[in-house]
Amino acid sequence: MKIDNSPPRGTRDLLPTTVAVRDHVLSAITEVYHRYGYQRIETPALEDITRLTGGQGGENEKLIFKVLRRGLGDPVEAGTSLSELVDLGLRFDLTVPLTRFYGNNHAALPLPFRSFQIGPVWRAERPQKGRYRQFYQCDIDLIGEASVLAEVELIEATTEALATVGLSGTTVRLSDRRFLSALARSAGIPEGAWDGFFIGLDKLDKIGWDGVRTELVEQRGLPASAVTTALEKIAGLQGLDATKVADAIASTVPTLDEGIIQDLATTTGCLDQIATARELRWEFDPTLVRGMGYYTGQIFEISHPSTSSSVAGGGRYDRLIGRSLGKDVPACGFSIGFERIVDLLEQAPRRDVVAVLYEAEVPVADALAMAREVRAEGRTVTVIRRAGKFGAQLRRLETWGITSFVHLRADRDPHSRPEERPLGQQPQT
Amino acid sequence: MKIDNSPPRGTRDLLPTTVAVRDHVLSAITEVYHRYGYQRIETPALEDITRLTGGQGGENEKLIFKVLRRGLGDPVEAGTSLSELVDLGLRFDLTVPLTRFYGNNHAALPLPFRSFQIGPVWRAERPQKGRYRQFYQCDIDLIGEASVLAEVELIEATTEALATVGLSGTTVRLSDRRFLSALARSAGIPEGAWDGFFIGLDKLDKIGWDGVRTELVEQRGLPASAVTTALEKIAGLQGLDATKVADAIASTVPTLDEGIIQDLATTTGCLDQIATARELRWEFDPTLVRGMGYYTGQIFEISHPSTSSSVAGGGRYDRLIGRSLGKDVPACGFSIGFERIVDLLEQAPRRDVVAVLYEAEVPVADALAMAREVRAEGRTVTVIRRAGKFGAQLRRLETWGITSFVHLRADRDPHSRPEERPLGQQPQT
Repeated sequence: MKIDNSPPRGTRDLLPTTVAVRDHVLSAITEVYHRYGYQRIETPALEDITRLTGGQGGENEKLIFKVLRRGLGDPVEAGTSLSELVDLGLRFDLTVPLTRFYGNNHAALPLPFRSFQIGPVWRAERPQKGRYRQFYQCDIDLIGEASVLAEVELIEATTEALATVGLSGTTVRLSDRRFLSALARSAGIPEGAWDGFFIGLDKLDKIGWDGVRTELVEQRGLPASAVTTALEKIAGLQGLDATKVADAIASTVPTLDEGIIQDLATTTGCLDQIATARELRWEFDPTLVRGMGYYTGQIFEISHPSTSSSVAGGGRYDRLIGRSLGKDVPACGFSIGFERIVDLLEQAPRRDVVAVLYEAEVPVADALAMAREVRAEGRTVTVIRRAGKFGAQLRRLETWGITSFVHLRADRDPHSRPEERPLGQQPQT
Repeated sequence: MKIDNSPPRGTRDLLPTTVAVRDHVLSAITEVYHRYGYQRIETPALEDITRLTGGQGGENEKLIFKVLRRGLGDPVEAGTSLSELVDLGLRFDLTVPLTRFYGNNHAALPLPFRSFQIGPVWRAERPQKGRYRQFYQCDIDLIGEASVLAEVELIEATTEALATVGLSGTTVRLSDRRFLSALARSAGIPEGAWDGFFIGLDKLDKIGWDGVRTELVEQRGLPASAVTTALEKIAGLQGLDATKVADAIASTVPTLDEGIIQDLATTTGCLDQIATARELRWEFDPTLVRGMGYYTGQIFEISHPSTSSSVAGGGRYDRLIGRSLGKDVPACGFSIGFERIVDLLEQAPRRDVVAVLYEAEVPVADALAMAREVRAEGRTVTVIRRAGKFGAQLRRLETWGITSFVHLRADRDPHSRPEERPLGQQPQT
């Protein structure tokens, strides 16, 4: 009889070699953020369904795994609505839990609070290649710092974390939601239509300038002349020399608030300092919008030559925490594409693993004593019984990542340690 | 307006100081098992509801958080049963997922396979102090090793892991389900009643010998003479000298299979070797039963003077993997009481954290450059703006775990680094 041992549709088992890559990425990232003073927190996987459906999650709220109330009658009474059946749901991101967490615990937390979160989230998406219904998110947030010190520190820490896992040579793209709003206003886009304008502009990568114009004018009904003006201004700000960004945005949108220009000058100045010390590029990109509606200031994305998607993105969201706290608290955050980064790295650094290969006649105590002796040298040891053809077993050991072995025979000299022999290539230590 | 930011009933937020203890315990445990060749795996939080309700989970199957099918009509049709509404559930332990995982992936895994799992499980228990509806389990299993090498290695690795997190001086209690069955048989307990006999015996700690006898004879209806014989035999085997265990069990149950005696002799002999090298005690304890029905051989628990509950427990379960694989595979495992251990440790080792305390007039770039300079020395640095009364702010920094600070004034000499000053007691480095 064939027994089905698959995990639920759209989810997957993580095998040791995959987990090793994930743990390597996680520990490298964690170590860097720790040195920047970020502290890991953890919230429950389950949240109240009313909180998950409060509108903060946008389209993700349609993808919630909902949990049945306990103690319901069976069968269900006629006319029972689904909302009566459900009280909890699995979180679909780490942002909704973070705002709740901060509201619940702010009195016991440092100010500013540097938060590091990593953990699974769940979305009932249609299963497709490379996308899973359970996946990890990794969010880093600085809550309570109003100045662009937050933006710069987060970009510095995140590019350092990425370099530590092997993704050096990243490019930071930077924009500002306040600048984009001012630009839309100065071009004559009606304020009520800014969100639609941003959503259209965000598709530039995929549909090009003409596509964006068509969508904005024909589908969203924005005034054609205003759209033309806005898109020309944006196009004119692409590919600027670093030193010219502040001047260029000021002359493009003459009504722009001085504070916004000053913030961009500070951020770009600091990025220049960081970039020279590291293998890092940055650019001002007025076509960068970012999807979520809650951003209120500078926004950024980090890309790497090995992939066309961004590997991290974030921005300032000064009015989100207020929804749970009752008063606004400035905040800025980054989300690292943990799953994407794991996919980019093929394997974890190779570890030296010694097999103690013991013949069946060798006493258990002797096999374990030999393992103990090698392990006492600080090495990783796994104990395996000799079985089948010798060469075939050695080849299997090699595929399992074992790098050398000690063969323990029943007729050995108990006073001398058998020679350790490498498997395949010489083991790296 | 008071906004409720509590996590769902029975769950909790984990704050940075708590997470630091958990991460400390986790990394210490992980490091030890890694050196014994154990590899971490991960399975999804969700499993098919039919798998979770297959009988393997005992009473825990009543505590499943059940997930509503997607795409149901609303309201629900009259007469719909709860089972029609549900297709998934949150795992209540790591054993059901492990057996599924092994069945699904065994061809790609080493043999024997050394598995390390840590992660949350969910149970809809009645909320009570110190018990949560989401908590972590930590399971270590050796699959595919038929000899007691598995038992000894697991006990050795687990006591070493416990010692590494600070729980040295543990005591290992050891028993054998096969021995208990043979004893029950030889005393005249009918085979169909052995499970009930074990369940009653398992309560010895709580209800004493008389309580156990009453339960077995009056509530479970077992023959009084057989119960008396069995309990006398068990009582006679308590507190035995290590060297006498094998002889004593052989003479107590003359029909006992030689293999069982041999296994106990090997395990106890090896434990004696380990115990002399470490601060470790062990004893044969015939009153040890362990709750789960799937054990088939030696069983064990580890206790520590700091708590009356055990801190780890496990045993051999040679017929469980077979249910998912279709053929039996020998297996032995340990479950470490991760939450209990975290509760026992009050705090993680103190880390040296330097605050760069900058006055509002100091340029952002300068504050960040100072942080970079200190961080380049390999230290943890957090950047905080000067605010409020100086002494009060320093006291807050101290409560947040910061150990020293550098005060950055606007009128400082830009060519000399301000003195680093300790907070409270001298920082430990």
